[in-house]
Amino acid sequence: MMVLMNKDATEEQIQAVVEVIHSHGLKSLVLPGGERTAIGIPSAIPPSLRPVLDETLSAMDGVDQVIHITRPYKLASRSFHPQPTEIRIGDVRIGNGHFVVMAGPCAVESYEQLREAALAVKQAGAQILRAGAYKPRTSPYSFQGLQREGLEILRVVAEEVGILTISEVIDPHDVEMVAEYVDILQIGARSMQNFPLLVAAGRSGKPVLLKRAPSATIDEWLASAEYLLTQGNEQVMLCERGIVPIDRTYARNTLDINAVPIIKHNSHLPIIVDPSHGIGHARYVPAVALAAVAAGADGLLIEVHPHPERALSDGAQSLTPAAFAQLMAQIVAVRNALAPATSK
Amino acid sequence: MMVLMNKDATEEQIQAVVEVIHSHGLKSLVLPGGERTAIGIPSAIPPSLRPVLDETLSAMDGVDQVIHITRPYKLASRSFHPQPTEIRIGDVRIGNGHFVVMAGPCAVESYEQLREAALAVKQAGAQILRAGAYKPRTSPYSFQGLQREGLEILRVVAEEVGILTISEVIDPHDVEMVAEYVDILQIGARSMQNFPLLVAAGRSGKPVLLKRAPSATIDEWLASAEYLLTQGNEQVMLCERGIVPIDRTYARNTLDINAVPIIKHNSHLPIIVDPSHGIGHARYVPAVALAAVAAGADGLLIEVHPHPERALSDGAQSLTPAAFAQLMAQIVAVRNALAPATSK
Amino acid sequence: MMVLMNKDATEEQIQAVVEVIHSHGLKSLVLPGGERTAIGIPSAIPPSLRPVLDETLSAMDGVDQVIHITRPYKLASRSFHPQPTEIRIGDVRIGNGHFVVMAGPCAVESYEQLREAALAVKQAGAQILRAGAYKPRTSPYSFQGLQREGLEILRVVAEEVGILTISEVIDPHDVEMVAEYVDILQIGARSMQNFPLLVAAGRSGKPVLLKRAPSATIDEWLASAEYLLTQGNEQVMLCERGIVPIDRTYARNTLDINAVPIIKHNSHLPIIVDPSHGIGHARYVPAVALAAVAAGADGLLIEVHPHPERALSDGAQSLTPAAFAQLMAQIVAVRNALAPATSK
Amino acid sequence: MMVLMNKDATEEQIQAVVEVIHSHGLKSLVLPGGERTAIGIPSAIPPSLRPVLDETLSAMDGVDQVIHITRPYKLASRSFHPQPTEIRIGDVRIGNGHFVVMAGPCAVESYEQLREAALAVKQAGAQILRAGAYKPRTSPYSFQGLQREGLEILRVVAEEVGILTISEVIDPHDVEMVAEYVDILQIGARSMQNFPLLVAAGRSGKPVLLKRAPSATIDEWLASAEYLLTQGNEQVMLCERGIVPIDRTYARNTLDINAVPIIKHNSHLPIIVDPSHGIGHARYVPAVALAAVAAGADGLLIEVHPHPERALSDGAQSLTPAAFAQLMAQIVAVRNALAPATSK
Repeated sequence: MMVLMNKDATEEQIQAVVEVIHSHGLKSLVLPGGERTAIGIPSAIPPSLRPVLDETLSAMDGVDQVIHITRPYKLASRSFHPQPTEIRIGDVRIGNGHFVVMAGPCAVESYEQLREAALAVKQAGAQILRAGAYKPRTSPYSFQGLQREGLEILRVVAEEVGILTISEVIDPHDVEMVAEYVDILQIGARSMQNFPLLVAAGRSGKPVLLKRAPSATIDEWLASAEYLLTQGNEQVMLCERGIVPIDRTYARNTLDINAVPIIKHNSHLPIIVDPSHGIGHARYVPAVALAAVAAGADGLLIEVHPHPERALSDGAQSLTPAAFAQLMAQIVAVRNALAPATSK
Repeated sequence: MMVLMNKDATEEQIQAVVEVIHSHGLKSLVLPGGERTAIGIPSAIPPSLRPVLDETLSAMDGVDQVIHITRPYKLASRSFHPQPTEIRIGDVRIGNGHFVVMAGPCAVESYEQLREAALAVKQAGAQILRAGAYKPRTSPYSFQGLQREGLEILRVVAEEVGILTISEVIDPHDVEMVAEYVDILQIGARSMQNFPLLVAAGRSGKPVLLKRAPSATIDEWLASAEYLLTQGNEQVMLCERGIVPIDRTYARNTLDINAVPIIKHNSHLPIIVDPSHGIGHARYVPAVALAAVAAGADGLLIEVHPHPERALSDGAQSLTPAAFAQLMAQIVAVRNALAPATSK
Repeated sequence: MMVLMNKDATEEQIQAVVEVIHSHGLKSLVLPGGERTAIGIPSAIPPSLRPVLDETLSAMDGVDQVIHITRPYKLASRSFHPQPTEIRIGDVRIGNGHFVVMAGPCAVESYEQLREAALAVKQAGAQILRAGAYKPRTSPYSFQGLQREGLEILRVVAEEVGILTISEVIDPHDVEMVAEYVDILQIGARSMQNFPLLVAAGRSGKPVLLKRAPSATIDEWLASAEYLLTQGNEQVMLCERGIVPIDRTYARNTLDINAVPIIKHNSHLPIIVDPSHGIGHARYVPAVALAAVAAGADGLLIEVHPHPERALSDGAQSLTPAAFAQLMAQIVAVRNALAPATSK
Repeated sequence: MMVLMNKDATEEQIQAVVEVIHSHGLKSLVLPGGERTAIGIPSAIPPSLRPVLDETLSAMDGVDQVIHITRPYKLASRSFHPQPTEIRIGDVRIGNGHFVVMAGPCAVESYEQLREAALAVKQAGAQILRAGAYKPRTSPYSFQGLQREGLEILRVVAEEVGILTISEVIDPHDVEMVAEYVDILQIGARSMQNFPLLVAAGRSGKPVLLKRAPSATIDEWLASAEYLLTQGNEQVMLCERGIVPIDRTYARNTLDINAVPIIKHNSHLPIIVDPSHGIGHARYVPAVALAAVAAGADGLLIEVHPHPERALSDGAQSLTPAAFAQLMAQIVAVRNALAPATSK
């Protein structure tokens, strides 16, 4: 941590900052500087002390800014955990060179719809079936999901077809129940900072996929992952699904492809990409899905619907089974092309 | 609603769209256009049908884009409810020309701290005391609030000092309990699309202040208000607190001052501004608070701490009681200056 | 300047950084840190050396990031020039407590149109007439301005009506010519980083109003002002006109009201606000204009057209003379209300 | 074009809009709508009339919004020119399935530096040498390029090494001169809306690479390309180089990978990606470069410096020759993997 003083800060104000630092048992180093003084803290600051110190110092007279040299996450960082995390669910492995495709409809609509979708995505090579039962929707007038009935259908179809499942949970008090039906809990973009939900999911014992909120910085996203990790849950995946766009004319969100190498370098957690929300139109989904693979993502989360034009949600961004199968072949080709470097 | 076809859409594709529109009992109007065909729907579409239709049409072959002519909210709109909403809590009125100031510390830290703050803000003219008991924090290592104990302190202090209260609720299952302690429920920016929470708050019977998420469009924000309103709760206030910034060097967020006149024109709900989060540094708070007043806001939500440098959260953006009192005098002056036009 | 090393940086890499710093005659201070080493430079670094050092150090092995403790501008900063700059043009003063209103049509369209506009804005109290002769337009099919003919009309009308003028210049080779016709040169948002243009305007001897580019940070904006100031031109005004929006449904840009107090605190240059572009719709312009006044802006730049529905550009955001006159009365009222604090 | 009226628009206001439309020889279609009236224009509107009509209608009483059904570009659109543009310079072809790599240092620094870079990038397989002689720099204290001397060096090195060249031009009056030295003119991100420069480049007869401004929408970018095309220059390439980020902690910009398939679908112009500026740190450049290839980009523009730590600009984002050679092998592998679909 580093405290930048105002240009006209007095000697007394500088001393007061130094004393606060020392009162926490930390060392300080005053850097006089050309224009203004900076005060460094050349000690390891315990994670729990960092925010307190930040708040206290930021509000002191003569202080301009507090700069964080260390990141607001620890358990999620590469330096704490140099080896990539590998998640194992049944026979499926995710991360550490293992690539996964999760595909299926936005929402469970009926047994028939889901079964058709599940068979199609499994045949094309997806290892995990995605389908929402609890749908967070911008408008109260939109279809909100089949809820518990949807989870029932999801479990039945998954067993019949022989495929793992992922589904979203939005209420902390539903976590335990949803965890009985599915193999992976999904925390949606709108819930990335729903901290009671994160704590509950962290305690569930289930693998969790944590989507990035559209306005979240990398640090905020990893700090949310830290909520899961501090509960003792090590099976955490991150999912980039597009950030707030500056132009909604052609795409619903801006897929942040930069996040893929940045997460891989700074964290050990697997990074999954959702191209369906990331661009929002089926015709563009394959291009950005392949981009994510080439950038080194550990997996994809893709919306596939047997009849997109009849979908109750996200029809515009859902691939047909045929388009998905074609994409899967290209994904394999790109994976193989980059094989020595990234795949297992 | 308006469907824009691709430039190379076939006659069959256009007919298919028309048939889907008719199948819902709606009329259609085909506009051949110079470059491409557009299909308008010159009928009132029920709110519940809009999202279905949007999804269905967006996914059809030959369709480029579906444009919404009507907004995704109804109960929150000015056209549905032309008179400004006026909220009454005890003797305090908010909206429809009545201006309110809610002030106090970011978090309840102790009885002494809160009492000192409450006395100071009341004396300076604030009608409502703000203080968080449940604190959503980016980092799991930050102070998370005193929780239920904090609510107890808040109620005791409010009664002793004689002031109304507002406090945040973050878990849907706490809504009923929190509602017993406070006069206004606050839904934080991170919870704007926590739909179970919105439904619970809508059913609480308490006035609700709904903060805007940092990436939310005006329509998404008002659609979240619609969740509250559809539960029969008419006592809803909106709160602008800053959107995602393009530059974090000098400010934590970008206060969207444009939102004030836009909300006032398009909705009947009172619009409150939170300059403390909107800019994030105490030295700049008064300027943007006054800007909000001049723009026509119905109230302010301001962080005031008796000793900002000892605050457990948001110290950097909290005003001292003295700075707050000075600001209140300026607020009154600006309100009076614009009186014939806006105040009561 | 502060160099953050990677967590796994070697002792050799740290030494190499230290040597580069010393090779420029600067001191270094190594801060071992808990997680990783930081290296501070406790010397005044000459402005011309900063970028070189930044580039060099950033590219060295083991270096994670270079953090700037000093800002990329010097002449534009408050610490260099503590007194607010006051610009004098004829009888008009701008900055240092003096408030100015520049108003008029987006573009010069004809002698009659401009004369009508000039008389109206002068009568309502504006001191400066704005009108574009060279119009930078997104589309090549849009009206591009009357160019030199427009400047001729502008000069004639200004003399007849008795008012000062401001007009945009977009080509560095036109600066001298335009400077013969107008009192203030305007550098548009799209030209904020047109460096040959900045150099030419800096050399012109004329007061310059520098608009902020929609994606510019505060530091980039002030660095552009620095281009003007380094040419010896001290008559520089900054103009906030809205940054890139996350939502274009209701407004064309997001007026960054935070920029007003931030500029006033960190720079001595006058800060003008353009509410017309900042929100983009005439009905919302007065609210944000008043917000800018209350926030402490030194002036406003407002589009006024005698017949907005016949305007060749920016009709949607132009005020009628009547609406402008009403706004001027409110501006005066707000200025007076805050008088002891801000006005002269 | 489509005019949305206010909800309380009168019959007279609707009629007035219809009359304005008819006065331009266009047809109108009134769609009564449920909530409010919309007025469609089912005629081909000439490009030059569109902006006028937009301005006029937007400013009329009772009008809420004017929606564009047709895009603000014509010559740049796929519907106007269905075949992908193929640019030929000597033996090199770009677009229409032909892939190109342009690589080299940010700036020409010396004959030795450039020659070393040119030999390295040619050997690794790049067809075009990039190097700036005129450098637009945020700070006036940064290295501004060797200017004409840099162009001389560039020409000499290119001839010696046998490679084509691209270099930036920033002043419209330099276009002719720069065009004598290089094979492709580069218009930088900061100049995307420097319209005099676009006109001059359009007239130069040289191929032009047009970078996207960090805040530009797709439509604004293509409208700038339209400026080049309307001058009769058909050899135009687009270059995505990152948009304004919401988080600058790990990356300088947000590379908008979505732009690749969007441009390919909506325009016939080749789309090049600049991963060096798009993410801003050498260690992340290969990942996003490969992403761009997989997404279908027609080429890459990459910064390579023989000694990044000695670079006078952009050292932090420049690849070493060794890293570049390794990346080139991966690029070829990904191209081949997707060959049947995209390459030639």
